Order: sequence, then structure tokens, then C-alpha cells
Amino acid sequence: MNYKIIYSVTAKMLKLLAIFLLFPFICSLIYKENFKIYASFLITSIVCFLLSILIKKLLGTKIETNLYTKEGFVIVALTWIIYSLIGALPLYFSGVIPSFIDAFFETVSGFTTTGASIITNLEVIPKSILFWRSFSHFIGGMGVIVFAVAILPRSPYNIHIMKAEVPGPSFGKVLSSMKKTAITLYSLYVGLTFSMFILLLFSKIGFFESLNIAFSTAGTGGFATKNSGIAFYNNDYVTIIVTIFMIIFSLNMNLIYIVLIKKVYKAINSEELKWFLSIIAIATILIATNIYYTVELANERIIDVLFTVSSIISTTGFTYINFSNWTKFAQIIILFLMICGGCAGSTSGGLKITRIIFIVKNTNNYIKKCLAPNKISTLKIENKVVENQTRILSYILLYMLVFSFISIILAIQINDFEEIFSLVLSTLNNIGPGFNKYGPMDNYANIPYFSKFILSISMLLGRLEIVPFIVLLSANTWRRKVCK
Amino acid sequence: MNYKIIYSVTAKMLKLLAIFLLFPFICSLIYKENFKIYASFLITSIVCFLLSILIKKLLGTKIETNLYTKEGFVIVALTWIIYSLIGALPLYFSGVIPSFIDAFFETVSGFTTTGASIITNLEVIPKSILFWRSFSHFIGGMGVIVFAVAILPRSPYNIHIMKAEVPGPSFGKVLSSMKKTAITLYSLYVGLTFSMFILLLFSKIGFFESLNIAFSTAGTGGFATKNSGIAFYNNDYVTIIVTIFMIIFSLNMNLIYIVLIKKVYKAINSEELKWFLSIIAIATILIATNIYYTVELANERIIDVLFTVSSIISTTGFTYINFSNWTKFAQIIILFLMICGGCAGSTSGGLKITRIIFIVKNTNNYIKKCLAPNKISTLKIENKVVENQTRILSYILLYMLVFSFISIILAIQINDFEEIFSLVLSTLNNIGPGFNKYGPMDNYANIPYFSKFILSISMLLGRLEIVPFIVLLSANTWRRKVCK
Repeated sequence: MNYKIIYSVTAKMLKLLAIFLLFPFICSLIYKENFKIYASFLITSIVCFLLSILIKKLLGTKIETNLYTKEGFVIVALTWIIYSLIGALPLYFSGVIPSFIDAFFETVSGFTTTGASIITNLEVIPKSILFWRSFSHFIGGMGVIVFAVAILPRSPYNIHIMKAEVPGPSFGKVLSSMKKTAITLYSLYVGLTFSMFILLLFSKIGFFESLNIAFSTAGTGGFATKNSGIAFYNNDYVTIIVTIFMIIFSLNMNLIYIVLIKKVYKAINSEELKWFLSIIAIATILIATNIYYTVELANERIIDVLFTVSSIISTTGFTYINFSNWTKFAQIIILFLMICGGCAGSTSGGLKITRIIFIVKNTNNYIKKCLAPNKISTLKIENKVVENQTRILSYILLYMLVFSFISIILAIQINDFEEIFSLVLSTLNNIGPGFNKYGPMDNYANIPYFSKFILSISMLLGRLEIVPFIVLLSANTWRRKVCK
Repeated sequence: MNYKIIYSVTAKMLKLLAIFLLFPFICSLIYKENFKIYASFLITSIVCFLLSILIKKLLGTKIETNLYTKEGFVIVALTWIIYSLIGALPLYFSGVIPSFIDAFFETVSGFTTTGASIITNLEVIPKSILFWRSFSHFIGGMGVIVFAVAILPRSPYNIHIMKAEVPGPSFGKVLSSMKKTAITLYSLYVGLTFSMFILLLFSKIGFFESLNIAFSTAGTGGFATKNSGIAFYNNDYVTIIVTIFMIIFSLNMNLIYIVLIKKVYKAINSEELKWFLSIIAIATILIATNIYYTVELANERIIDVLFTVSSIISTTGFTYINFSNWTKFAQIIILFLMICGGCAGSTSGGLKITRIIFIVKNTNNYIKKCLAPNKISTLKIENKVVENQTRILSYILLYMLVFSFISIILAIQINDFEEIFSLVLSTLNNIGPGFNKYGPMDNYANIPYFSKFILSISMLLGRLEIVPFIVLLSANTWRRKVCK
């Protein structure tokens, strides 16, 4: 284990967080909020900055040229934990969220772009706090790209999923091409968010609202600034813009880049895109037909269903319809969409569409092989042969195991299977709303503290696709020295 | 596709069924039941026999020496469907179960050793019908061994799970060693059932009851002859005997054989045995502790909990405790046990303990590989390297897909997630009781017909481990001629 590099990156990350915290501080000043609010942001920022310097001075941070996979995982996991812990401080210091576990939950929910909230009345919350929540979605969404592509090298589980090809094993050698990719994707992300913001401004819902919705959508997060979410504006233009951008932000960023460099034909032929849009279309039709014929007084329009479907599959979790009242058939489709998630290389959570395609094709192959065991059949996605089938299958299994394990722990305090399973699915896939008492019209305030903590872990596990945390917690990681 | 061999085996299987049907007929005569009851068994038996002759005469049945995997799957799937359809006739003809779908469900539940029943009052049912239900468990339990080992050659999915090594590709060559294995296991099965029957006779619950319980336990089925199940006898001796034999019948038959040929040391060292017993012990302790501290008026003794745990993990489904009243924590452990199932090569259902061991070891390997992608690590179970990891993983995934798919269909008519998921788990793993309205103290009578049919399919899919049915239904199977 190369400790120096971990100290070094942590120090850098803390400095970055100190800068991030200045934004809500400025917001607080602009809206002339009281001293306690803006001071809590400023103090946290300063603490963050001092901590960064302290680590540098005390522990030394000479950058090593070799960064191994193990260090990558540890850095990612540590950074997310530190960001969640420190990011929660302003919420706690300002007195807006009096319990630290609650503040931690809310912040994890922000950075992991889950959007599950413990706040019961959003309309009394200071604007700077609302801004910090949405902004954390924006940072968290971007984070996936920045961390997974730019900072984390040689990530074996990302290579196959994000198709970000990282040549060579050493950090120095990779840096340039990785940086380039990261900068491109980063610019794209900011550009798209800005476009959405501008388009929302036309709706006249105001500067602050537009910015927050744009941030929330960009990270496929789902934190709202109003209790009734975007239903508050009662504006179809807003609904449509949000729907479109929820879908765009669930697409592979590389795909959007390909469109921008005018290789539209190549983008349209993407297998993942076709599957993603087909799943949205089929789910919308199935649910719309089902609720039209079975739910009494169903006044949902097709656009409302499409909005809900896009919101769930993109793992944004914006909802203005209480799907807890839908039939179980419609609800089970929602559960399925929760697991799906968006495309690989997007800001969305879930298993990702690539893995869904893989599951279907792999099962098909398996059955063929049962009939003709000696026949060699290859599995292709996007016209490329998938080589590490065992690895992808193992990840899916690990995901199921983690799902089961968290469910068992939640069952200690929560006494309803529908709530348990929907809460785990919602947090592990970074969506937001669960079912029943924790449905779209409710929030997570009444969940006991221990379960809230477990759900925070679940959100973090989901965001980073489990492995980094297991590496961080494994004794093996800290025992041996594998540096250089 | 080699049609001749399919006709041939089907004819043989029908003749066998005709013989099986004579047992309840004799039972009916002994207990001097009315004409309608014994006639329905006799007529079905005769119909069966005539059908067998008809197939031989009309379609020709010259045995071919080459039996391919595809034919094996088709034969297994067809036989089970035919047995379920014809086995349901006496229940229907006798008027005991007035609806054919109900009779079909009850028979599928019997042969697949599920033990889910649509009969609301067992104590008014003629003895011959009760006998036929228990006897179908005995036939179904044995069936796994007879079909999968003796009749089905070169089954790629069984080789790894049942460790029945089948050398060479041709039927003729395999016959002797396969037959030998089948006869050994068959004798063991009958011997164990007989031992249990004798031991139960000592309890003075009577000849008929002892025989039925022995049959039900042998097949890890769960059909009872009394409404309150074995609680009716209020006899700890019976409870203990049943518990012990539920566990014995969930063990790998090969393991029992190894003990009998006095290689006890080898058997004790079996990894699967250790895992199986550990899971039972841990689950019993967790549930007992949990319900002791949380459920009011919990008067369950540790023996009752052990009985319930053994009953569920062995997929027998005998229950005299209503676990629907337990805490969700205890219930989620029951759900986990449902998925586990017994050991490979036993009469039990579920994923099987070998696959559970595989899941754990494979996940461990996966995490290690994430850290050191170039390191080669092998996966060993019972000190043997597991080679076809992808295949086992794919099966587990297929199992999950089938589970999801059936759940979605059930959601059309059943409006409670707990019921939907527990029903699918219970039938797909051939256990019996579900939760809530379909819990241990209730039955499946009130399920709508369409869902009952789907659950029948679920039981069959679970019993034959899915693949044979997909092969049977695949157009590909019937299109090409691959004979010889």
C-alpha cells in the first residue's frame, strides 16, 4: 500500500471541497440569510482547507508515479466518505438538521445523487442549504466521471462497463490521455447542465429554481426545492424539459460526444441506446395501459407516466405521482426499472443498461450451450466480443448479495417487506423514493437512526459499485505493502 | 431431433405411471371407499396403459443407441408434464377436486415435491386420494435421481451439480454405469424411507399416517394428511423423527452411500455437509433469539424453530408454526433458507448448497481479482477445481430472471408484494407455504385460476431446474433433425 499517494490525493480533494463549500456561502450572502447559516458554510470550508494543509505538512504527500488498483479503490472510497462527513457539517452547524446522522444521510443522498431526503418541509429551508443539496448532486454526478475516469486508473470493473480504455499500468503514462478524456466529458457535463438551465429560465420559474433543477437533473439526483417537487410549477414545459434532460443525462457521455463530433450515424446505431429507449417505451406503454384500465380515477396522462418512468430508470427520482397507489403490476415494473438504471458512463445509478443487455445475451448463450456443449459461441455487445463474462456475472451476483445483506439488516427495524426491499433498491441504485410509508409523497424522516445509517452505506455502495468499499474495509488492503 | 426415442421413453413412462396408479386403487379397495373413488384410479391406470400401447403401435419406438442432450431435456420435460396431467385425472374424476386446474396444481405440487395444496379440509378427503398425494411426493423425489441420473445422459447442468460423472457421449456405452448408480441410489432412497416408516410406527400414530409422512418426507414434499399437519399428533417423538429425516433427505445421496460403505471420515469432511449444517444451526439460533426477544407470547421452543428451519431449507414445507406472525427479520431468514435449498443430489429443491458455496467463494475470488487482475486464482469446492464458473453463474442468473418474470405475471392478479414474492419463491424452490394469506396455516385455494396455472409452471420449472422446459418450448428444438 502506497500511503503517501493516498494522503496526497486526500489533501487535494479536501482543498477542492473547501472551494465547493464557498458556493453555498456566497449564495447565503446573496440571499442575506442569517449569520448562523453563512458562517457554518464558511467555517466548514476553512476547516476543510486547514485539514488539507495539515495532512500535507504532517504526513507528507510526495506524488508517486505508480498508482496501483488497490490505491485507486481506497482513494475513491475514502474521498466519498470524507466528502459526506464534511459536507454534512454545514447542515448540522446551521441547525437546519439538528441530528448529525440525518445531516450525514442527506449529504450522502446528495453526493451519491440519490435524492432521498429526511427534510419534511422544504419550503422553510434556507436557500443556501437548498443550493448546497442540489449542488452536491451536481458534484456527485460529475464525480463519477472525474473519479472513475480521471483519477482512478486501471479500474478493471470500469473498463468493461465504461469502455474507457486505459493503456498501460503506470499512473504517469496514463495521465495525459485520461486527463484529456476527463476534460472532454467534464466540459460536456457542464455544457449540458448550462443548456438545461437556460431552457428552464424560459419557463419563468425563476433563476434559483432553474439552477437547482438543472443541477439536480444533471446528477440524476432528485432533490427538489419545493415539497410537491416539480408539480409545484404546474408547467408542462418544465415537465417536458426535465423529462428530456433526465434521459440525456442517463446516456453514455461518450455517445453524446460522438453526436457532437457529428458522427450521429454511429451514435444512433448504439445497441445500448436502442435498448434504453425501448425499455422506456415498453414500460411507459405497459404502465399507462395497466393504470388506465385498473386504477379508479386514474387521471395520470401519458406524459406523467413517461415522466415517472424516465425519472426512475434514470435514477433521478423526481416524482409528482404517487406510484404507491398504482397496481402491483405497475409497481413491479417500477421495481424492475429501479434495478435497470441508465446507460454505462452516465451519471445514473443502477445496474446499467449494458449489464441488462449482457444478462439477456448471456442467458441466451447459456441455453444454447446446454443444447450443444461443445459449440463455441461468443457474446457481443456493441459489436465487440465481451471477454470477461465471469467478471461481469460475478459483479451482478455481488450486487444481489449486497442487496440481500442490507435487506436482512434493515429487517431488524423496519417491519414491512415492501418498504424494506424498495428502500434498499432505491438507495442501492441511487434513485430516491421507495414504496408505502417512504413513497414519492413521503420522505425518510421517520426511519430509525440505525437504519438511516445503513441506508447511507447502501447509497455509497451503489454509487461506487461496491468494490471500493470492500477493498477499503479489507484487512488485506492495510496489511501488505505493495508500493512500487 | 430423434423422435423415435422420445416416443419410446414416453411409452415406457406411461406404462410405469399405469403401475403407480394401481397403488392408490388398491388402497381405495382396502379402505372400502365408494365406487367413484377406486374406479377413477383404475380407469386412469387403464387409459395410461392403452395410451402407452397406442404410442408404441402408431408411432414406432425402436430404441436408438444415440441419445443427445436435446432429446434428454425434451424427454424429461415431456414426462413431467404428462405425469402431472394424467396424475390429476383421478382427483378430478373422483369429484374430490371439482376443477381440473386445481387438480393439476395439486398433482404438480405432488410430483414436484412442493406440497402446496388447494384442499381446504384434508380430514374429509378419501384415504386413497391422500395416499396418492403422498405417493406422488415419493415418486417425484425419486424421479430426480431416476430421471437425471439413470435416464438423462450427458446432462451438462447436472454433471457439475450432482457430480454424477457420465463418461462418453453415447447412450449404450453409458447405460451400465448409469444404471448401476441409479439402482444404488434408488435402493438407498427406498431403504431410508422404509426406516423412517418403521421408526414412525413406534409412535403409535398408525400405519396409514406413518406411511404418508414417510413418503412426504422422503420426497421433501410436505403434503399432510391432517389440517394441522404433524402438530395434530402432538408428539415430540414424531417431530424429532421428521426433523432428522428432513435433514437426511436433503443430504447428497452419494454422501449417505459413502457413509454406508463405511467411509465415514470422507463423508464428515464434505464441505457441502458442513455448510448445510452450519446454515441450519445459524438460522435456528438467529430466529430463536429474535423471536424470543421480540414476539409477544412467543411460546415456540427451540425444537419448533429447528423443525421449521429444517422444513424450509429441506424444501419439505411441513409447518405447524405460523411464521407469518414472526418478525420480518425472522421472516427474511426464512426467505433466504427458501432460496438455499438442500444439498446437490438430494430430493430437495432450491438453488442447492453447492451453488451457495460457489456464490460465496466466487464473490471472494472476484474481489481478490479486482485488486490483482493478473493473479490467477482457482475456485475449489470439495477440493476439486470448479471449471465452468460461467455456466454456474449463468444458471443462477437464469434462476433470478425466471423468478422476476413469474413475479411480474403474478402481479397481474395478486395485489401484495409479500404474497407475490413468497409464492414464487415457495413454488420455484418446491417448498410449499408462502406468506400472509398463503402462509403455513392457510392454503392456495383462493388464488385465481390463471395464477394457479402460472404457479404450477413455476413448480415444474423449479423441479427440473428450468432448462428442460426452455428446450422443450424452443422452436429450434423441433426444427432441425440432429438424429445420429
